[in-house]
Amino acid sequence: MSTSQFAEPLKAMVGRSFISIDELSNEELRGLLDLSKAYKATYGKGSSVDPVTAPKPLTGQSMAMIFQKRSTRTRVSTETGMNLLGGHALFLGPSDIQLGVNECMKDTANVLSRFNSLILARVYGHADILELAEHATVPVINALSDKHHPLQTLADLMALEDHFGDLKGKTLAWVGDGNNVLHDLMLGCAKVGMNVRIATPKGYECDAGILATTQSLASENGTKPVFTTTDASEAVQTADVIVTDTWVSMGQEDEYKKRIAEFAGYEVNSELMGKANEGCVFLHCLPRHPEEVTDEVFYSDKSLVFPEAENRMWTVMAVMAAQLGRY
Amino acid sequence: MSTSQFAEPLKAMVGRSFISIDELSNEELRGLLDLSKAYKATYGKGSSVDPVTAPKPLTGQSMAMIFQKRSTRTRVSTETGMNLLGGHALFLGPSDIQLGVNECMKDTANVLSRFNSLILARVYGHADILELAEHATVPVINALSDKHHPLQTLADLMALEDHFGDLKGKTLAWVGDGNNVLHDLMLGCAKVGMNVRIATPKGYECDAGILATTQSLASENGTKPVFTTTDASEAVQTADVIVTDTWVSMGQEDEYKKRIAEFAGYEVNSELMGKANEGCVFLHCLPRHPEEVTDEVFYSDKSLVFPEAENRMWTVMAVMAAQLGRY
Amino acid sequence: MSTSQFAEPLKAMVGRSFISIDELSNEELRGLLDLSKAYKATYGKGSSVDPVTAPKPLTGQSMAMIFQKRSTRTRVSTETGMNLLGGHALFLGPSDIQLGVNECMKDTANVLSRFNSLILARVYGHADILELAEHATVPVINALSDKHHPLQTLADLMALEDHFGDLKGKTLAWVGDGNNVLHDLMLGCAKVGMNVRIATPKGYECDAGILATTQSLASENGTKPVFTTTDASEAVQTADVIVTDTWVSMGQEDEYKKRIAEFAGYEVNSELMGKANEGCVFLHCLPRHPEEVTDEVFYSDKSLVFPEAENRMWTVMAVMAAQLGRY
Repeated sequence: MSTSQFAEPLKAMVGRSFISIDELSNEELRGLLDLSKAYKATYGKGSSVDPVTAPKPLTGQSMAMIFQKRSTRTRVSTETGMNLLGGHALFLGPSDIQLGVNECMKDTANVLSRFNSLILARVYGHADILELAEHATVPVINALSDKHHPLQTLADLMALEDHFGDLKGKTLAWVGDGNNVLHDLMLGCAKVGMNVRIATPKGYECDAGILATTQSLASENGTKPVFTTTDASEAVQTADVIVTDTWVSMGQEDEYKKRIAEFAGYEVNSELMGKANEGCVFLHCLPRHPEEVTDEVFYSDKSLVFPEAENRMWTVMAVMAAQLGRY
Repeated sequence: MSTSQFAEPLKAMVGRSFISIDELSNEELRGLLDLSKAYKATYGKGSSVDPVTAPKPLTGQSMAMIFQKRSTRTRVSTETGMNLLGGHALFLGPSDIQLGVNECMKDTANVLSRFNSLILARVYGHADILELAEHATVPVINALSDKHHPLQTLADLMALEDHFGDLKGKTLAWVGDGNNVLHDLMLGCAKVGMNVRIATPKGYECDAGILATTQSLASENGTKPVFTTTDASEAVQTADVIVTDTWVSMGQEDEYKKRIAEFAGYEVNSELMGKANEGCVFLHCLPRHPEEVTDEVFYSDKSLVFPEAENRMWTVMAVMAAQLGRY
Repeated sequence: MSTSQFAEPLKAMVGRSFISIDELSNEELRGLLDLSKAYKATYGKGSSVDPVTAPKPLTGQSMAMIFQKRSTRTRVSTETGMNLLGGHALFLGPSDIQLGVNECMKDTANVLSRFNSLILARVYGHADILELAEHATVPVINALSDKHHPLQTLADLMALEDHFGDLKGKTLAWVGDGNNVLHDLMLGCAKVGMNVRIATPKGYECDAGILATTQSLASENGTKPVFTTTDASEAVQTADVIVTDTWVSMGQEDEYKKRIAEFAGYEVNSELMGKANEGCVFLHCLPRHPEEVTDEVFYSDKSLVFPEAENRMWTVMAVMAAQLGRY
């Protein structure tokens, strides 16, 4: 794998935090996706490169992973990905570190920056990741806040490119909660020239500011304006991919009954898939719950959910490498 | 260390899960024990091989370790053993992942298989490990279920071979609860040609199906039929090794008083050891509690418990290497 | 980095536990500080050595890290430092292992010694670390007990040497609780020829035995006798460094109000700093709470707290390397 090709498009990412997709230039987004694919080709199960002698460019680097919320996928993909590149990721769960509780965020950020090359954090409030990034002297990675989930978008776009090739002019339909996963996904779609159609129940709309940013990006990148509706069937018309997510995130369990009722008609099933373009595929960031998608769709050959999950590893590897300028 | 000698006997283990001892052919059991000893010779404290330059055949490999039950021994031996071979083991405790709770087992198995080369799990119900192995696309290691504990058997047989040499015709006496540890141990003994004698209190007998399998294996391998009794003194007659385990496992604490009463007469002490063959040794998988064995026996030169514990590392290394076909 | 220069002064540390500062000869303390600085020069952020090819002398070594008390700083600095040297540190938190609860300390020490090259432990009672060291067959590192905190002293002395150069004849003033951090710090100061002045509120005096040992060391090393007072202003006279620590340690939260009241007048602020020598600096082992030091001092250019924190990594690396005789 030649590393020189990635140095140029990603050079401005060195030392920079990774908080949301809109902070990336189109070239950086392109570079990250290409680097992710290069990593999959080198370190993936089908690779002919011997794992023992494969490059380990992050040897001697370390990353503190702070998880305020439990996460199997993010934690395992990141820890394993860091190891593939030769570095070490430390898992700090809610019982190991409580941001801002026993020490102010500023001091924690400063101290962790002394020990580690990178800091990754999954937090509740987006303000926490911003404060961490402000005070840290090493790059921070947002591994989910209540507002943004940029790592998931990279994985999703990689899965779609692996399936469709060039995504320009393709249409993505989001059917579900207007949440953090949607926020970065629509920003990312606009950047790669995909049209976005969104169905959210009344009261579950996405963030208005992020929607406005996406509209601007859509206009800049020559895609159709983002279309929003409360009707799932309407949203999926002309869609090449339908995406949903859980209706009830961690911390919202007490709203379970209310939410299930309000998402009536939002189940992704064969009927809904049938209203989209022929060849329409399905994405879900997992964990999946039975109510939001039928087994028939979820386990079908139209479902890209497991390659999508795997991509969480290749893409976080690309982000870490870009921030450290070591490919 | 020549790796070629292990490729042939262990070739059918590549890609296969390791669930219970009876799934191993006699040649595979032999191969695993030999490989374990080769690892001890290379990586052990007495080795002349420099740890810095010692082979690291599992470099670039990773294993998710799922612990539904706490375990110091299994966790530390596996994590350290994986590191000695160059790979990375991720610890996922009960607060990190709850199998089947927030996501169905099938999805978890599929996702972990995307990130990791191997999955090791310590579970409560044996059905969980079977379901995990069914859905995983990488090999699974059973690190204890309520029915089987095959890693412990490898460690025990290695300790006995290191002490006695060839085990053919030797006699093992189990004195205690008819539990998961006994199950694999009697299966393993039959495979290496050892006679098995079992004393369990009434109501604590081992699994009838596994006993039947062991009787078949005993017959195939030319050992005496398994002898069962409720009398500890009778069981240890002609024994070359006496083995016990805790009477009260994790999760059974509320039965403590009842169990202590029902195991009266099952303490392994000097008197009981005196009824066995001269040179009889003692095994215990630890952690040990004071009631099941006296200090006089436990800390005596007849006790192999600490080498036995150490062998947990050499043997799990052999299993991982065999499953990955990298020695 | 030439390793030969460290082998001689540190040779008697090979295989030995590291429990308190007074157990070090003056030459060993000097050697550890020099080795710490050499590690910083090689592995630190300003180093020109490529992390990928930097020496990894602890490759193939492992350390069990037992934390009975939560700790971000100790855990991250040690795990990262071990990784920089090529080795692997396993984190065992209170939910992973409870010393002496499910197994006697002797057995745990013996078993962990079979798997690991080193054992580090942060405990409540100092007797626990002593018992662990007594039974372990590999070197133990005290990472904080209620009586001693020798790793912190190494980090503090390194920070002071980096700032002042030779410390002989300099004066340190402790203003706060007469706790474990003070105990090793005053022992260490006496060994490097620093004068020690201590202000503790009535009832918060340091351990009388350790004070007596320090007085002996002070006399041996030609420093002034340790001066003790209850008056913070008096203690800081002639001080080149003022050190404090939290007034309320983990486990003392129920005494919060009482302690805050009894430490009135102990806040390290600009006025107090003004009573010390010109050029007086400030140390704090962190985490810092607002009551014991003002922002004005804590974030000033007189504050060495963040380099001090970083030194926790370089110094524990030196201790591990010395105990293993691999530099």
